[in-house]
Amino acid sequence: MLSLKDLLQGDKRAIAQTISAVENGTNTKILEKLYRYTGNAFHVGITGPPGAGKSTLVNAIAAELLKQKKKIGIIAVDPTSPFSGGALLGDRVRMTDLALKKNIYIRSMASRGSLGGLAQKTKDVALVLDASGMDFILIETIGVGQVELDIAQVCDTTVVVLVPESGDSIQALKAGLLEIADIMVVNKGDREGSDRLLTDLKFALELREQTAGWHFPILKTVATTHEGISALVSEIENHREYLDKSGQLEKERKSKIAMHIHELIEEKIRSHLRKSVISKAELARIADKVYRRELNPYVIASEILSGSGLNI
Amino acid sequence: MLSLKDLLQGDKRAIAQTISAVENGTNTKILEKLYRYTGNAFHVGITGPPGAGKSTLVNAIAAELLKQKKKIGIIAVDPTSPFSGGALLGDRVRMTDLALKKNIYIRSMASRGSLGGLAQKTKDVALVLDASGMDFILIETIGVGQVELDIAQVCDTTVVVLVPESGDSIQALKAGLLEIADIMVVNKGDREGSDRLLTDLKFALELREQTAGWHFPILKTVATTHEGISALVSEIENHREYLDKSGQLEKERKSKIAMHIHELIEEKIRSHLRKSVISKAELARIADKVYRRELNPYVIASEILSGSGLNI
Repeated sequence: MLSLKDLLQGDKRAIAQTISAVENGTNTKILEKLYRYTGNAFHVGITGPPGAGKSTLVNAIAAELLKQKKKIGIIAVDPTSPFSGGALLGDRVRMTDLALKKNIYIRSMASRGSLGGLAQKTKDVALVLDASGMDFILIETIGVGQVELDIAQVCDTTVVVLVPESGDSIQALKAGLLEIADIMVVNKGDREGSDRLLTDLKFALELREQTAGWHFPILKTVATTHEGISALVSEIENHREYLDKSGQLEKERKSKIAMHIHELIEEKIRSHLRKSVISKAELARIADKVYRRELNPYVIASEILSGSGLNI
Repeated sequence: MLSLKDLLQGDKRAIAQTISAVENGTNTKILEKLYRYTGNAFHVGITGPPGAGKSTLVNAIAAELLKQKKKIGIIAVDPTSPFSGGALLGDRVRMTDLALKKNIYIRSMASRGSLGGLAQKTKDVALVLDASGMDFILIETIGVGQVELDIAQVCDTTVVVLVPESGDSIQALKAGLLEIADIMVVNKGDREGSDRLLTDLKFALELREQTAGWHFPILKTVATTHEGISALVSEIENHREYLDKSGQLEKERKSKIAMHIHELIEEKIRSHLRKSVISKAELARIADKVYRRELNPYVIASEILSGSGLNI
């Protein structure tokens, strides 16, 4: 039995149960009910290539925020292979100490092959944590693809983490990471090449600085020894203040809401399509004919819609 | 003036014009018209992390296939940053020699920030090349995200390329690359660590081998010196034969067609939604109220649909 009251008070068991219900789709009404209690948490995305030390950095940020008496939710998104199973989640183990503390809740999300729905699920889980009274929600993703860019949409501030290793800045450019960064972190900053990377990033971000009102800080950290972490948390606070005062926080959250509504409508239509418009057997029969080039997929798609009663 | 006849005969200018028309959406009827001439090309995806030497490998495979008098289309998908512009496409320059040959057509696709539509555009371009009489279509992607997994869907055979550098096999696991691989290639196989990587991959693929009828070859190549390339092309042919004889080629192509029809219907509904169901201004007004938590997005999405005349 899910208790909304317990959830709103930040009860860990209630959070866990609610997230499970949301993830499994067993209680679709729950998001509707808790929505009015959301909108208070500040969402920080931490993203970067594998091996950049994101988990350690997230741990360090959380520890710093805990000192400031903040309540923190962490979502670690890990597109793990169904074959490798949970093995790669091993680095989560380090988080255990933190997870036992009072004002923190950590959730790992593995895609188990269904990358498509991962961004949506992450957003839903963030809503649950938001309603549970978290001040900050830290969302850690491997910054490599569309899912990450989708998840970045849910974040107010995006921190992109790189390490001074060959190819990293080029990879970041290719993946479009620099365009979503509000704050850049060069982690493992005690390693060779970190100054070179700092210069590269400064150069790459100059263009964006000219057109934005934000100064795009580039910080060096050594997450394992907590070096540079309090400066990073300060910059996160600075960015929040900047968003707030400039009116951008409100503006961006509204446009995210509009997008969310659009997605909800699309999902309803998709589900209607699957259930009512065309049966699997019928689609298979049609695909058979298209395979033999007796039918044209473009023509048949229009015909299915005309016959669907959808009035399109 | 687009000429379907010229396209079907493999005229390079007609191919270029048709692809441009498809990419820009200036001629939506063209795919409908050329569809019946498709279905003959064999699609090979070549994917892997940045720096694995995919472009060089694709060049080498193409050169090998050219010797066998095959006609080859190459699509290089490059999610380039709008900030870095075309600079990262520099490595395409190497392809120029090949591009001038008679039986080959090379197309680079940059996402220019619109990752979402990239997979669909790639599939459309593949249809154009298919209709133009290509025997093989090689599709090169950076194997890191959802787009790549989407594009893998269009390929009959997927070749995953790794290099013997630290973290590569773990990264491949995390990105779900091993699950889509039909053939694994350890490129730059003359470097230290390549045997270790081979062993790792063998171990990782053992599980899949037990449940599949295919032996998942793992090959060493040095693409720059053409080492191992003819063995790779042989394995691609072997995989094609396996797919053909086992009936899987037909089965998978049919299920891809079913998916394609589904996507076409969804796209039509989405476009209807954008144009007719709810205006931008109206959505902004609603988002405003949701932001203040006066409205609930889940409830309002249902209401918009009920009032839309869509009969859902």
